[in-house]
Amino acid sequence: VGEHYTRYLLSKDPSVEIVGADIKPLRTGPGGDTQAGKVTFYRGSFLDKKWVFDIIKRHKPDRVINLASYSSVAFSWENPSECFVNNTNIFLNIIDSVRELKSGAKVLSVGSSEEYGPVSEKDMPLEESMRTGPINPYAAARVAQENLSGVYAAGYGLDIVCTRSFNHVGPGQPDIFAVSSFARQVTEARLGLRDKITCGNLGIVRDFIDVRDVVKAYDLLLEKGKKGEIYNVCSGEGYRLSEVLEMLKRKAGVDAPVEKNAALVRPADNPVIVGSCRKLESATGFKRKYDLSRSLDDILAYWKNSLERASGISGKNK
Amino acid sequence: VGEHYTRYLLSKDPSVEIVGADIKPLRTGPGGDTQAGKVTFYRGSFLDKKWVFDIIKRHKPDRVINLASYSSVAFSWENPSECFVNNTNIFLNIIDSVRELKSGAKVLSVGSSEEYGPVSEKDMPLEESMRTGPINPYAAARVAQENLSGVYAAGYGLDIVCTRSFNHVGPGQPDIFAVSSFARQVTEARLGLRDKITCGNLGIVRDFIDVRDVVKAYDLLLEKGKKGEIYNVCSGEGYRLSEVLEMLKRKAGVDAPVEKNAALVRPADNPVIVGSCRKLESATGFKRKYDLSRSLDDILAYWKNSLERASGISGKNK
Repeated sequence: VGEHYTRYLLSKDPSVEIVGADIKPLRTGPGGDTQAGKVTFYRGSFLDKKWVFDIIKRHKPDRVINLASYSSVAFSWENPSECFVNNTNIFLNIIDSVRELKSGAKVLSVGSSEEYGPVSEKDMPLEESMRTGPINPYAAARVAQENLSGVYAAGYGLDIVCTRSFNHVGPGQPDIFAVSSFARQVTEARLGLRDKITCGNLGIVRDFIDVRDVVKAYDLLLEKGKKGEIYNVCSGEGYRLSEVLEMLKRKAGVDAPVEKNAALVRPADNPVIVGSCRKLESATGFKRKYDLSRSLDDILAYWKNSLERASGISGKNK
Repeated sequence: VGEHYTRYLLSKDPSVEIVGADIKPLRTGPGGDTQAGKVTFYRGSFLDKKWVFDIIKRHKPDRVINLASYSSVAFSWENPSECFVNNTNIFLNIIDSVRELKSGAKVLSVGSSEEYGPVSEKDMPLEESMRTGPINPYAAARVAQENLSGVYAAGYGLDIVCTRSFNHVGPGQPDIFAVSSFARQVTEARLGLRDKITCGNLGIVRDFIDVRDVVKAYDLLLEKGKKGEIYNVCSGEGYRLSEVLEMLKRKAGVDAPVEKNAALVRPADNPVIVGSCRKLESATGFKRKYDLSRSLDDILAYWKNSLERASGISGKNK
């Protein structure tokens, strides 16, 4: 998301000053190369409060967006405590720095549709006024972050806007996420690198939004979002995972068999998650540009490019 | 609470095996002396996961109750990040140890009435089915702990029971809490040690429950509470702080003037908090023993005893 947001900001205004910070180095491979030399980048850990504080003190940002967190529900089930502590402590280090510095920066707190928990299908689409009910460690951390945002906005006057962001898709997404994993596997099958597709629970319905629309929504919310308010960032449409997989196979002309792997099925899962994007649209004028079919085309192209490049490199090594 | 609970457990069954752990040493002064020699005590930090894990591994408790946390809303406004991180990380270290050890211990997760946030007076008393809406850092941490309890109960099968405990009163409570502070000041005025009473916002209404009733409720919940369920622990009665102060002054025969100190008024405060204890009563048969008047008598006696003892000691030093 950070990569796409950087690209979006630079395309809007090449003179924008962007400060990036991450525990990993800037990516310079495909998808990452647009950033090199155009952002001031710090490498370090957001769990180090002094490091976070010093960056904000030095650069006095007008806007802060926190994208540093574990964002996989599956990972959170394996590492519940690490996920919760990491995600909430990182966020606190950021908003506490803004608070202590009285920096006045507007902060976007990125939350998740997972915060809603299980809601019966008849109550879809999900609206921001509905109560949260997290049923996995990742979601519990997101609700905590949102509650802290509310406290810091009302209690300390910080200008924090919250999102509940729905499932992202898009080129460049790591394949620990279902759609990216499916696209990679389908592409591998097409290139003759595998003969079957492995998956978890295909019965769940999710609201997918392209990462390029996500960053546009975030930018609009940092401009027009109201302090202390929460906004769904979603497409408003639900797709069953089995449908998404079929679309990918059809687009790639692949007919490999699909095999369920019990290890990929989570201890508890929300059957249906579909959001309403009316609040986001009416507050900011947001309109999405990428429907799911277009996203899937781009994701397949990304994997084809990546895998061909990887096999080209491995060919050279022979 | 730990001190009172230890005393309660020993009075019920002198052969009970109690393991205590705290970052502070066991109190051996008034109120603490009943424990010495009767509990196995470890001194250390609950933020040290290995330390927590080893204690649970060694003693294989049937029941675990976590009372180690910052419990003052006022403190949490001054130290929001420290309060949140401390309270949630301690709790995670405990439940993660129980999970990893597959210990089967029943865990009581102690939450707070502060989790409800502002609710209009007409919707009192508060019931467990109502949504939470934390408006201070302490409450945000309690909601996080409760959400994590739900995740660990449903997702990992841990036998966790949650409380939303209302304002505690009782002899031995530190005077960072309003009622204990009032009782101390009234007693000091009676002993001629001060001529006015300092207070924060006296307009708020709270549901006070005596710590000795609290520990009885906790013990009943550890016996009969249902996995993943939440129970209010409260008296069901609301008192305005100004009324409580008047009761204390009347009981002590003190007529000192009352002065508001702006530093004691919190950034945001819930005007009225009164709970329903029906769920607790019907699930466990709980009935409280101490009404507020009796609690206040005992708290005044505690401060009279403490202050006279302290001035006796200081007299010797002269």
